[in-house]
Amino acid sequence: MILYDLVNARKTHFSPNSWRVRMALAHKGLAYEVRDVLFGDIPSINAGGDKLTIPTIAHNGRLVTDSWDIVRYLDETFPQTPRLIAPGADGQVLKFFQYWVQTTIHGGIARMILRDLYDRLDPADQPYFRASREKMYKQTLEALQAGREERVDAFRKSLQPMRLSLGHGPFVCGEQPGYADYLAFGGFQWARISSPFQLLAEDDVVHAWFERCLDLFDGAGRREAPAA
Amino acid sequence: MILYDLVNARKTHFSPNSWRVRMALAHKGLAYEVRDVLFGDIPSINAGGDKLTIPTIAHNGRLVTDSWDIVRYLDETFPQTPRLIAPGADGQVLKFFQYWVQTTIHGGIARMILRDLYDRLDPADQPYFRASREKMYKQTLEALQAGREERVDAFRKSLQPMRLSLGHGPFVCGEQPGYADYLAFGGFQWARISSPFQLLAEDDVVHAWFERCLDLFDGAGRREAPAA
Repeated sequence: MILYDLVNARKTHFSPNSWRVRMALAHKGLAYEVRDVLFGDIPSINAGGDKLTIPTIAHNGRLVTDSWDIVRYLDETFPQTPRLIAPGADGQVLKFFQYWVQTTIHGGIARMILRDLYDRLDPADQPYFRASREKMYKQTLEALQAGREERVDAFRKSLQPMRLSLGHGPFVCGEQPGYADYLAFGGFQWARISSPFQLLAEDDVVHAWFERCLDLFDGAGRREAPAA
Repeated sequence: MILYDLVNARKTHFSPNSWRVRMALAHKGLAYEVRDVLFGDIPSINAGGDKLTIPTIAHNGRLVTDSWDIVRYLDETFPQTPRLIAPGADGQVLKFFQYWVQTTIHGGIARMILRDLYDRLDPADQPYFRASREKMYKQTLEALQAGREERVDAFRKSLQPMRLSLGHGPFVCGEQPGYADYLAFGGFQWARISSPFQLLAEDDVVHAWFERCLDLFDGAGRREAPAA
C-alpha cells in the first residue's frame, strides 16, 4: 500500500484529509509506504488518467482517491480489520459529521492559518497555492488571515457541539476513538503543522482531546513536527 | 404507552424534543395516547418523585424522561421494531448530531421565535416561561427576537453541513429517514407551530426536506396546525 501525501518545504505532512487516512490505516493496523509529493506533482501520479487529489492510495495496482472513498475501500478490502464507516443511516450521520468538520473546523481554521501555511510551502508550490486559494476565498491570503486574534473566540465557540460530545468520554466516538475523531483530528493537525497560532485554549476539553489524539498509535500524530 | 406532551393555548403540541419522540414512535409503529400538560402541570406527573421534563412516557408502570433515554428505552423494549440509536461509536456520532441540533438549530431558532411562542402559550404558563427564558438568555424575550430579519441569513448559512448531507439523498440518513432526521425535524416543527416567521428560503433543500418530513407517517407532522 502506498499513500501519496503532500509535503511542505520542511517535508512535514500537513494535509488534513491525509491525516484522516493515516489515522484510519493505523486504527486498522495496516502497513503502508508514503510517497511525498508537492501540489505540482499530483498530475504525474496518474498521467493521462482521471484527476486525483491528495490523499490517494495505490493498492493492488489500483488508485483510490478521496479520503471517504479510501476509508470505504479499506473497510471493504480488509473486512477482518475494525470497520470505520458503517453502512446505511449510521454511515450517513458520520458523513454529516465530515461536512460539519469541513464547514466548521476546516472552514474556520483556514481563515486563521492559510498565510502561515503558505510561508511553509516549498517555493515551487507557492504561486499555485496563492492563486488557487485567493480565487476560492475571493481575497488575498493576508486579508483572509488578518484579525484572527479577534475571530478566534467565535471559532472556539463554534466547536460547542463537539465539546458537549466530549462530556461523555475521552473521544467523540466514546471510550475509544473512531472515524469521527480522525475526521476532526485532521483539521487540528493541519493547523498544528502549518501555523504557530494557538487555536484552542489550554483549558478546553477539545484541547485535551487533541492531545489525546496526538498520543494514539504510539504518538503517530505527535511525531510530525509542529510549525516553528 | 402514554406520552406527556406540552400544549399551548390552542392545544397544539410545540415541544421540539417531543416531536423527536413522536416521530420515533411512528417510525417503530408503536401506538400511544397523549396526555396534554402545561408547564405548570409537569411536577404533578410524578408528585414527590424525580424531576421530570417533557417529553416523558409512561409504559408498564414506569416513567421514562428525556428524549434520548426514551428512544433508547424504546429500542431496548421493542427489539422487533427498527432500531433508531446504534450502540457504540455510531450512537455517539448520532449524539453529536443531537448536540449540533441543540446548539445550531434550536439555539438559532430560539433567537427568532421565542417571543412569538410566548404569545401563543396558555396564559397560565406565560409568567413562568418569560421568567425562565429571560434568565437563561439574560435578556427580554422582545430583545432576544428583535432584528431577526437581519439575522435569518446567518441562521440559514449555519445549516450548511445539513444542506451538504441532503445532497446525497432525500433524508439526512439517506434514502429513508432515521433518528437524525427526527432530531432536526423537531426544531423546525417547533418553529412552524410557534411562529409565522419564515425560517427557510423556499428554494433551500432544507425546506424541501422539512416538507418531506411533514408528509411522513400519513402527514403526522403536518396535521398539527401551524402558527397563524
